[in-house]
Amino acid sequence: AMAAERALAMATCTAPVNIAVIKYWGKRDTDLILPINSSLSVTLHQDQLKTTTTAAASRDFTEDRLWLNGKEADVGHPRVQACLREVRRLARKRRGGGEDTAALSLSYKIHIASENDFPTAAGLASSAAGYACLVSVLARLYGVEEELSEVARRGSGSACRSMFGGFVQWQRGERPDGTDSLALQVAPETHWPELRVLVLVKKPVSSTAGMQTSVETSPLLKHRAEVVVPERLAQMMRHIRERDFEGFGQLAMRDSNQFHATCLDTFPPIFYLTDLSRHIIALAHRYNAHHGHTKVAYTFDAGPNAVIFALADTVAEFVEVVRRSFPPATNGDQ
Amino acid sequence: AMAAERALAMATCTAPVNIAVIKYWGKRDTDLILPINSSLSVTLHQDQLKTTTTAAASRDFTEDRLWLNGKEADVGHPRVQACLREVRRLARKRRGGGEDTAALSLSYKIHIASENDFPTAAGLASSAAGYACLVSVLARLYGVEEELSEVARRGSGSACRSMFGGFVQWQRGERPDGTDSLALQVAPETHWPELRVLVLVKKPVSSTAGMQTSVETSPLLKHRAEVVVPERLAQMMRHIRERDFEGFGQLAMRDSNQFHATCLDTFPPIFYLTDLSRHIIALAHRYNAHHGHTKVAYTFDAGPNAVIFALADTVAEFVEVVRRSFPPATNGDQ
Repeated sequence: AMAAERALAMATCTAPVNIAVIKYWGKRDTDLILPINSSLSVTLHQDQLKTTTTAAASRDFTEDRLWLNGKEADVGHPRVQACLREVRRLARKRRGGGEDTAALSLSYKIHIASENDFPTAAGLASSAAGYACLVSVLARLYGVEEELSEVARRGSGSACRSMFGGFVQWQRGERPDGTDSLALQVAPETHWPELRVLVLVKKPVSSTAGMQTSVETSPLLKHRAEVVVPERLAQMMRHIRERDFEGFGQLAMRDSNQFHATCLDTFPPIFYLTDLSRHIIALAHRYNAHHGHTKVAYTFDAGPNAVIFALADTVAEFVEVVRRSFPPATNGDQ
Repeated sequence: AMAAERALAMATCTAPVNIAVIKYWGKRDTDLILPINSSLSVTLHQDQLKTTTTAAASRDFTEDRLWLNGKEADVGHPRVQACLREVRRLARKRRGGGEDTAALSLSYKIHIASENDFPTAAGLASSAAGYACLVSVLARLYGVEEELSEVARRGSGSACRSMFGGFVQWQRGERPDGTDSLALQVAPETHWPELRVLVLVKKPVSSTAGMQTSVETSPLLKHRAEVVVPERLAQMMRHIRERDFEGFGQLAMRDSNQFHATCLDTFPPIFYLTDLSRHIIALAHRYNAHHGHTKVAYTFDAGPNAVIFALADTVAEFVEVVRRSFPPATNGDQ
């Protein structure tokens, strides 16, 4: 039986970046990565930004190894190990007690290589796409077809949302073991084809992730998670269902602002918005005021980039407005 | 009887600036200026920053007039008129139905001149000192000795806190007519003689006062007013009573940050903190971390200045640290 086992197997996957419009900030369980509130995101097209990961398993490999953008990285990282362990557990469960001799041995060492087609340090939710891709490629390698967003969540919370295209909710869940803290597709991307996402890439600034400091010190974050987000999530689902850009954009901006407000209410305070972000925010509000309704909406994550939502017919004009407002020295390329 | 009336009377008063450590932001009644939460401030010494106002009444004056820092201003401003009306009402009440022929006629026109010894546009709560001073000088002119913080509140909410020295609470009050929305001295300035206040004056930036927009749009401000501030106010009173700088400073910083968080949660968002404010905040946290406890505390109002609290023995060292961190081009003079 041993001789019939495959000696080498390889798989490749890609995974997309997602942009939250109802933000995730704060865990109620840091080990299982269970959030204090549900969140909702828009998954970007993979033709612009994606992660590509290849995994190979072989009986000839003597150790697990991992490369990120061509540089060897620590395969022993607890979150990488959590993903590996969980996918293998699902594979074992799937095979049951029987010996599927055609299946790849779960004891083989693996080599994993992952590449982003965007700057990793740019705060572009790269860990979300990265872990979604890692889990997908491992599942393909081991022939696992189960719901995998729960596993991706163990790599990076928001990675679970990159397991689906279109509009995706990561539901908070209630169970202490996290089995109901999953991503669910709210609508496929075909649901709202006119919606566009612009990413204004800024120079990365160093930022320490202070999510748990916020949970421990911000009274406003607690209120946000318990009271504000549940209402907003229901509202956002309705705006998406109705393809209501006015409602979608307004709420996306409000939620981005509230997320940054809870960062400021953290002690010591966390700042992600800079004077440049303020100018982009002011520009978006001026642009909308000029047109008398919401034509563009901004959202800012825990990093330096601005993300702009607009409908297809607005993109060219707004890009021109941004070009004119920000000289080449301060704006990015994309 | 008419001939016995005084033909001219004059009075001069000064009033101090106050710095809130539990912030006021948002009115529940914009006409009576009733706040959504109680607030607490430290009144500054008048040897550094004060307003001086002189008022004269004469039967020879043909109209009411007002000068602010040497420039004539609109005496018909509703808030100026509210203060005038309320002080005259108290004077009338005091005199009862009788004719006090030695008293200044309430029907004489008045001339008022007010001077700040600090830049008016610098956001240094100048309207607080200004209205406190206006009410004090009118009260002196008309011989009114009643509790006047309620009247000062009608000029500018925080002006009621400038009617007392030391540590002052502006209690929210419950009555719809505002008669219990008063300032009360928590402790005199002699209670904590080592406490120092540094004002780092920055160039003013234009800012629109968006207090009522916050009340209407920020869910976090509502939670702050209803839940967070009542707890914090009790804590702050205890820290002051115990002269506990660690507790006082920590809470002052947290409350400043939370106030700015609610500004950011306002829609459209309001920004008072700039990249320079962020640097001062980071500097204060680094300085405290270096010393292993809270030696300095910052607070920022709806304007460009940073205010630093420290005990007397820390001032010289921290001023030196600020001087070294901010080249003359970016720091102020004081």
